[in-house]
Amino acid sequence: MSGSSFGSLYRVTTFGESHCAGVGAIVDGCPPGLSLTEADIQTQLTRRRPGQSKVNTPRDEKDRVKILSGTENGVTLGTPIGLFVPNEDQRPKDYGEMSRIPRPSHADFTYEKKYGVRASSGGGRSSARETIGRVAAGAIAEKWLRETFGIEIVAWVSSCGELDAGAVCPETLTRDEVDQNIIRCPDPAAAEKMIERVTALREEGDSIGGTLTCVVRNAPVGLGEPVFDKLEAKLAQAMMSIPATKGFEIGSGFAAATMTGSAHNDAFVMKNGRLGTRTNHSGGIQGGISNGEPILFRIAIKPPATISRAQPTADFDGKDTVLEAKGRHDPFVVNRAVPIVETMAALVLMDMALIQRARR
Amino acid sequence: MSGSSFGSLYRVTTFGESHCAGVGAIVDGCPPGLSLTEADIQTQLTRRRPGQSKVNTPRDEKDRVKILSGTENGVTLGTPIGLFVPNEDQRPKDYGEMSRIPRPSHADFTYEKKYGVRASSGGGRSSARETIGRVAAGAIAEKWLRETFGIEIVAWVSSCGELDAGAVCPETLTRDEVDQNIIRCPDPAAAEKMIERVTALREEGDSIGGTLTCVVRNAPVGLGEPVFDKLEAKLAQAMMSIPATKGFEIGSGFAAATMTGSAHNDAFVMKNGRLGTRTNHSGGIQGGISNGEPILFRIAIKPPATISRAQPTADFDGKDTVLEAKGRHDPFVVNRAVPIVETMAALVLMDMALIQRARR
Amino acid sequence: MSGSSFGSLYRVTTFGESHCAGVGAIVDGCPPGLSLTEADIQTQLTRRRPGQSKVNTPRDEKDRVKILSGTENGVTLGTPIGLFVPNEDQRPKDYGEMSRIPRPSHADFTYEKKYGVRASSGGGRSSARETIGRVAAGAIAEKWLRETFGIEIVAWVSSCGELDAGAVCPETLTRDEVDQNIIRCPDPAAAEKMIERVTALREEGDSIGGTLTCVVRNAPVGLGEPVFDKLEAKLAQAMMSIPATKGFEIGSGFAAATMTGSAHNDAFVMKNGRLGTRTNHSGGIQGGISNGEPILFRIAIKPPATISRAQPTADFDGKDTVLEAKGRHDPFVVNRAVPIVETMAALVLMDMALIQRARR
Amino acid sequence: MSGSSFGSLYRVTTFGESHCAGVGAIVDGCPPGLSLTEADIQTQLTRRRPGQSKVNTPRDEKDRVKILSGTENGVTLGTPIGLFVPNEDQRPKDYGEMSRIPRPSHADFTYEKKYGVRASSGGGRSSARETIGRVAAGAIAEKWLRETFGIEIVAWVSSCGELDAGAVCPETLTRDEVDQNIIRCPDPAAAEKMIERVTALREEGDSIGGTLTCVVRNAPVGLGEPVFDKLEAKLAQAMMSIPATKGFEIGSGFAAATMTGSAHNDAFVMKNGRLGTRTNHSGGIQGGISNGEPILFRIAIKPPATISRAQPTADFDGKDTVLEAKGRHDPFVVNRAVPIVETMAALVLMDMALIQRARR
Repeated sequence: MSGSSFGSLYRVTTFGESHCAGVGAIVDGCPPGLSLTEADIQTQLTRRRPGQSKVNTPRDEKDRVKILSGTENGVTLGTPIGLFVPNEDQRPKDYGEMSRIPRPSHADFTYEKKYGVRASSGGGRSSARETIGRVAAGAIAEKWLRETFGIEIVAWVSSCGELDAGAVCPETLTRDEVDQNIIRCPDPAAAEKMIERVTALREEGDSIGGTLTCVVRNAPVGLGEPVFDKLEAKLAQAMMSIPATKGFEIGSGFAAATMTGSAHNDAFVMKNGRLGTRTNHSGGIQGGISNGEPILFRIAIKPPATISRAQPTADFDGKDTVLEAKGRHDPFVVNRAVPIVETMAALVLMDMALIQRARR
Repeated sequence: MSGSSFGSLYRVTTFGESHCAGVGAIVDGCPPGLSLTEADIQTQLTRRRPGQSKVNTPRDEKDRVKILSGTENGVTLGTPIGLFVPNEDQRPKDYGEMSRIPRPSHADFTYEKKYGVRASSGGGRSSARETIGRVAAGAIAEKWLRETFGIEIVAWVSSCGELDAGAVCPETLTRDEVDQNIIRCPDPAAAEKMIERVTALREEGDSIGGTLTCVVRNAPVGLGEPVFDKLEAKLAQAMMSIPATKGFEIGSGFAAATMTGSAHNDAFVMKNGRLGTRTNHSGGIQGGISNGEPILFRIAIKPPATISRAQPTADFDGKDTVLEAKGRHDPFVVNRAVPIVETMAALVLMDMALIQRARR
Repeated sequence: MSGSSFGSLYRVTTFGESHCAGVGAIVDGCPPGLSLTEADIQTQLTRRRPGQSKVNTPRDEKDRVKILSGTENGVTLGTPIGLFVPNEDQRPKDYGEMSRIPRPSHADFTYEKKYGVRASSGGGRSSARETIGRVAAGAIAEKWLRETFGIEIVAWVSSCGELDAGAVCPETLTRDEVDQNIIRCPDPAAAEKMIERVTALREEGDSIGGTLTCVVRNAPVGLGEPVFDKLEAKLAQAMMSIPATKGFEIGSGFAAATMTGSAHNDAFVMKNGRLGTRTNHSGGIQGGISNGEPILFRIAIKPPATISRAQPTADFDGKDTVLEAKGRHDPFVVNRAVPIVETMAALVLMDMALIQRARR
Repeated sequence: MSGSSFGSLYRVTTFGESHCAGVGAIVDGCPPGLSLTEADIQTQLTRRRPGQSKVNTPRDEKDRVKILSGTENGVTLGTPIGLFVPNEDQRPKDYGEMSRIPRPSHADFTYEKKYGVRASSGGGRSSARETIGRVAAGAIAEKWLRETFGIEIVAWVSSCGELDAGAVCPETLTRDEVDQNIIRCPDPAAAEKMIERVTALREEGDSIGGTLTCVVRNAPVGLGEPVFDKLEAKLAQAMMSIPATKGFEIGSGFAAATMTGSAHNDAFVMKNGRLGTRTNHSGGIQGGISNGEPILFRIAIKPPATISRAQPTADFDGKDTVLEAKGRHDPFVVNRAVPIVETMAALVLMDMALIQRARR
């Protein structure tokens, strides 16, 4: 319960902050006999790292993962898998005035109050580097889910500020299609406008939020553990634990609030020999349990809190001041969240799949 | 991990479905020395039960809670508190054609597939009666939070279909104000329109969704366990585990996706001797940890799936058919969800408060 | 972690003390489709209850279990199984001077210090009635283990004071053989002497300890979760959580400390088509994992602390006094522990079996 | 539940086997503000490592621990503490015939059956190197317990084969006294005989078992979580999870089985202003909760299974063969278990202390 573990049968424990030796995770409960090398994990880590495009921060972190334990000759042993990514800059940084001024909408203030001590980098584990451990652990889960059930998980940027992606087909969309532009919006026209918008905001020293949609295809029927660990409940926890997330929707989401039952109900119908539903307002989950339809959810991500524009605020002593962040900062992070969301979804699904397997 | 427990230091385990002996919960970890009688718990159970108004189902369930263990002379002993509410009708009902036809957007199909056996009532634990155990357990948490920190939790119906409540002041709103009309919308004009809308839909044999907003006041700074058990992540899990929920937002929620960082950031400012924030887009949580501002979240609830209008669908064998539900059904459940949301919030906060207390 | 839950996939949560409404348990994670009625559970509860013989306390508790939830038409639904046994005497007893004087080697003192409040009965959950919930939950596990793997679990009294049982064959011993005398020692000659000894001590107002041995036959190879949840580690926790236990041994136990490796090692040998071991000093567990041989362990149980002989001691204020317990008390409890040990073993094995099933 | 985590509020997750990159642990839940450097941890790791004396294996492993995360400027941040010790020899060894022949009383056979894949080193996590992670994590707990409560934990070799240590005073014994001879028996005369015995057995290619006793002084009253996480139950799990342990006793242990209640009961008495007990058959625990007296327990450790004498056994196919282990092996490991037992005890106590702190 001490916050850094997730899952029960496939349990991930992450560690590390910005300026220590590194970040990583222990995966306990990975089934033995899975073929696994560092390359299997690196793909998603590389998609996650900054410095990939002009719409993100130009820091170039290498983020090469090393498997510390749990495999031999490229096969998992069933023992804990240690995963480690060294930090490039391991010295506590001098964050200067930031140590006096809690950054607005950041974790500086709450970490200080909760722990009574604070890493020089400010918010400790609220750093985006924390997500490296999750992504590495989730990349292994993705591989197992793919090989065991043919599960495919694809997330994409569905909006940037007021700009929405146009029609996207969640039944067929691939990661390659998502990655074909730097903002990871599979609608090329919308992507272009988004890039313009983000580039302009970067010039202004400002940032912008957005939404991200994710589909899980080929999940077996029966995943999810009512009543507290319903599939959408664990997905919601997983997604809302990602830095900067502000909202979660499954299927029809908030739109369901404006609908009538007769319009919202998903009628059953025969589909390729299985009982499916005509519509999918349920988002692939009924009664907290996957029903065989694509699992569809959407996440709101706030604009990055670190902006270079001057911000009037107060210091730790409550004295009014103005904060001016130095350096260059990410004006938009939704595209970088894509692999984080996919791998967090994999962590939830894999744990649920193992639990359900024990039941039969 | 078997789904029916929630929390770690204040751990609730619920049990019961529609037609067994009853429903209830075990609360393990309640601090000793709390004064507690059944009356303390009954208030929220009574607010939860159906049959209270013309906008809800007219079934009159009594739902009287009995404390089975864990108290003596009206004081908690620190031992597990057993809570039990007998079912009025304990015989497995004859659900007739429903046993052949999975109700659309219900849990009949997924329970059948997951467990290979199904309660006669259909979805087993997906029944709304399941929430009784949570509400009873959460009512105890509410009492402890109120007495320990002065925490106040108030939820209300913020929309019904397309009808929104007008201005509501989350800083001062009381449960009495919420309960002054049957639809639990504190804006009387909006409430009247909502009641009309729901009444009309009832006549049509249809139902409607809505949203519910909840505020937690006076929560201490420092609650929430990064990185996976961030406060908003556990709130999201808690809320998305309530039947019929489709979405969760904290603070600015999905609106954050359209905002710039300069507009969204909550600047710090001195407030009555503590460091607070000028705006509250963060919804009282920064970096996954409560910051002392009101915690504000919103939930989307879908229209009830059981409607009396005829629905074309398929039976378990995939044969096309038409389902006509008998009896009278709830056309709207958001108002009944009010105490469920409040008590689930209390479960999250109490667990987090105990964990944080261990840290110091 | 709040102490009243055990297991992960098959998770039991118990509740209740001596003078509340009753005692019981919630079983979460029982596989669906198991045929189950109250009679299946009652057998072990009846073996556990006092009043069965002159060597135990003559209180006649009825201890009839009621299934509150989780089954329909005699079959488990996969939902939580509520189990309840009402207390005959539900009024807080007047324990008189005991409220002033902590009983030596009892839990009165530590409960008072730990919780700051104490049930009138003294030690709250340290009461032997607490074990009812475990036994009921474990009886269900026994049934599943028997039907799934043919597992047999048999415990017996292997010593009473200095009196040891003679040769007992753990490979064939049955519960009927154990129950053929009131002291549950399958060696009739030793049993007779033990009964004499206990009867004499009862007259003297004194009590006596003993040991209990347990065998688990037909457990599949592969149960146990290194490194902290090795099979013997979880068995040790389970057994040492039973009131009055003072020691646990697996296989050769403390005798191993005096042996050489060449004498202690269990050589492998072909046995009926499977690889077994010639000797079984390992007690059926190697590296924390069951190896297919009978699992054998032994438990030390202290003499009951409540005796009617006068005891010089001190009251809560530290003032010297003499305690004289009223009423008749158990001079020996090892025979009553037999079903408790068997069912606790079943709880461990079933949880481990489900976890291992998820792995494949 | 996936076996490699221990504890709830102070939760340790270990990883690593013999021939991977290294071994280590993540500690989640360590309170912030504890001063901590690698030197604080190294002492116990150094006491644990082999190659220290002629009675142990002459392999000289360096076992230098590195803190990967969770501290800054020598102070804990409240975030997960990563701990890592590289393996000297990271290449999978050629264990030759051992891959065909499961070593008697080793984990080769059960790991093969449980996981279906086996590390080249044989038993994977059953390797003694696995304990490095525990010791490192427990060394941090020891420091916190010492600084917070003045808790002292001292273990020693109380027997080697049939040779018992003479009188040892658990109230005053220090680690320095234990370490004054290589066999860690604080009775110099007994120690000398033990060393002779072990040396002789080494010459014969054989090994010997022994017992280890441990005392915890200055533990506060109130630790332990009835009913399943009683203090002795968690200590038993902790100790029986250490490789090669065969038995656990608390206080009077198996001797209690031969005693009468009047002789065994610990009468209360005033002691330096607190209510203590005249005798300590309870071993410092009553009703599963620490009572302020020294916590005393004893562990049986079997003779090391790897011996160089030829052993008749069978190979994986069941064919009779003779195994002759190459190299030099530990004829006795009880002395090396001393720091493992101490640190495992610290893990239990620290977790219990944090849970109890949350209650008040």
